[in-house]
Amino acid sequence: MHPMAAGGEHDEVTCVDFWANGFGMRVRIALHELGVGFRFVEEDLRVRERSELVLRMNPIHRSVPILIHLGRSICGSINILEYIDEVWGQRVSTRLLSRDPLERAHARFWADFVDHKVFSTQTMFLKSKGEEKEAAKAELLGQLKCLEGVLGDKNFFFGDEFGFLDIVLIPFSSMFRGYEQHGEFDLEVECPTLIQWEKRCKEMESVKHVLPNEEMMYELHKKWYGIE
Amino acid sequence: MHPMAAGGEHDEVTCVDFWANGFGMRVRIALHELGVGFRFVEEDLRVRERSELVLRMNPIHRSVPILIHLGRSICGSINILEYIDEVWGQRVSTRLLSRDPLERAHARFWADFVDHKVFSTQTMFLKSKGEEKEAAKAELLGQLKCLEGVLGDKNFFFGDEFGFLDIVLIPFSSMFRGYEQHGEFDLEVECPTLIQWEKRCKEMESVKHVLPNEEMMYELHKKWYGIE
Repeated sequence: MHPMAAGGEHDEVTCVDFWANGFGMRVRIALHELGVGFRFVEEDLRVRERSELVLRMNPIHRSVPILIHLGRSICGSINILEYIDEVWGQRVSTRLLSRDPLERAHARFWADFVDHKVFSTQTMFLKSKGEEKEAAKAELLGQLKCLEGVLGDKNFFFGDEFGFLDIVLIPFSSMFRGYEQHGEFDLEVECPTLIQWEKRCKEMESVKHVLPNEEMMYELHKKWYGIE
Repeated sequence: MHPMAAGGEHDEVTCVDFWANGFGMRVRIALHELGVGFRFVEEDLRVRERSELVLRMNPIHRSVPILIHLGRSICGSINILEYIDEVWGQRVSTRLLSRDPLERAHARFWADFVDHKVFSTQTMFLKSKGEEKEAAKAELLGQLKCLEGVLGDKNFFFGDEFGFLDIVLIPFSSMFRGYEQHGEFDLEVECPTLIQWEKRCKEMESVKHVLPNEEMMYELHKKWYGIE
């Protein structure tokens, strides 16, 4: 397959997502990164009921993002990133995941950490008040510092190339200004390495294209979590 | 690399696990399936404190299974299965995951369903009593029937070959007799397709070798969950 065929109109790629969905931002960044053209179908998560398309394409979880490729749906953001990498990374020779099994395992391990530790701590932090909020803030900062340890002195998580784990984590940065306002701290003081990484990621066209306005993100989350 | 080199002593493979850990059984089945020789180090999960080896090799989660290959640790059972497939599946030309990206995505989707839906429902079912137990039982049976739908009339989840999703789910079968005793039902009546699949899996040498005694499994879970 000629590289130029990647993202050609015959691929028929649709991404069903909501603009403020961090999990879905990953999918959109990955598609941009590999030059895959796609149709974006917005699913408004502010309304309770899911669309007929979501119910049909993801009957088990009824959630977005959903990638629809040639009429078949792929669900779950990490799962979709692997699929995108396997289908289009192959064609354009830009792989999101390293070819080295050990690096792949590390990237997947930390992606799981982001999904099952950082995300739930973020939710706890944003939902809570007083002592509970302080405890969640400390835990969240601890987890972000842990990720700084993985980053080390590299430009991106696995070296000089923006890849899988960068894509997994960077959507969370659209809440970083919200963290600072909600927790009254300066993330650049707490996690300077992470903030330098954030700035490098935000120079990527794919990231610029997808990440939403940070104030709008925090406003939305304030409504979601009842933050005053 | 010559196929016979798979599992050779120079690979230095160690699996740290507990005999009754369903997540770890996956790893041991996969290693047997691909003919990878390994050293088994038992971590007794009945005692509260983790060993020095576990704390050192999995400092983030302090859990097993852990695969140690050439001195480097890989953690998380699904992550380990992917690693095993990438390192040794390549060598022996028996792949746990299909080479087709869509089938791979489906296998990973359902693996995630087993880990994040079936497992938590099983825990809820075993921990609860009365109405709550009946509700959890209904949910668990619904999830198992859902998996029967994926199985369809195939011998294994993705056709005629025992593979990734079979390995992910089969350890749960060591609790099926426990489900029946705890919930007072006959799983062969409720999920006949799944029971036929279970029987086929249990004819595999790798599965026979790893799955524990079902009575011992249920006795252990009775202690863990305070079942009378």
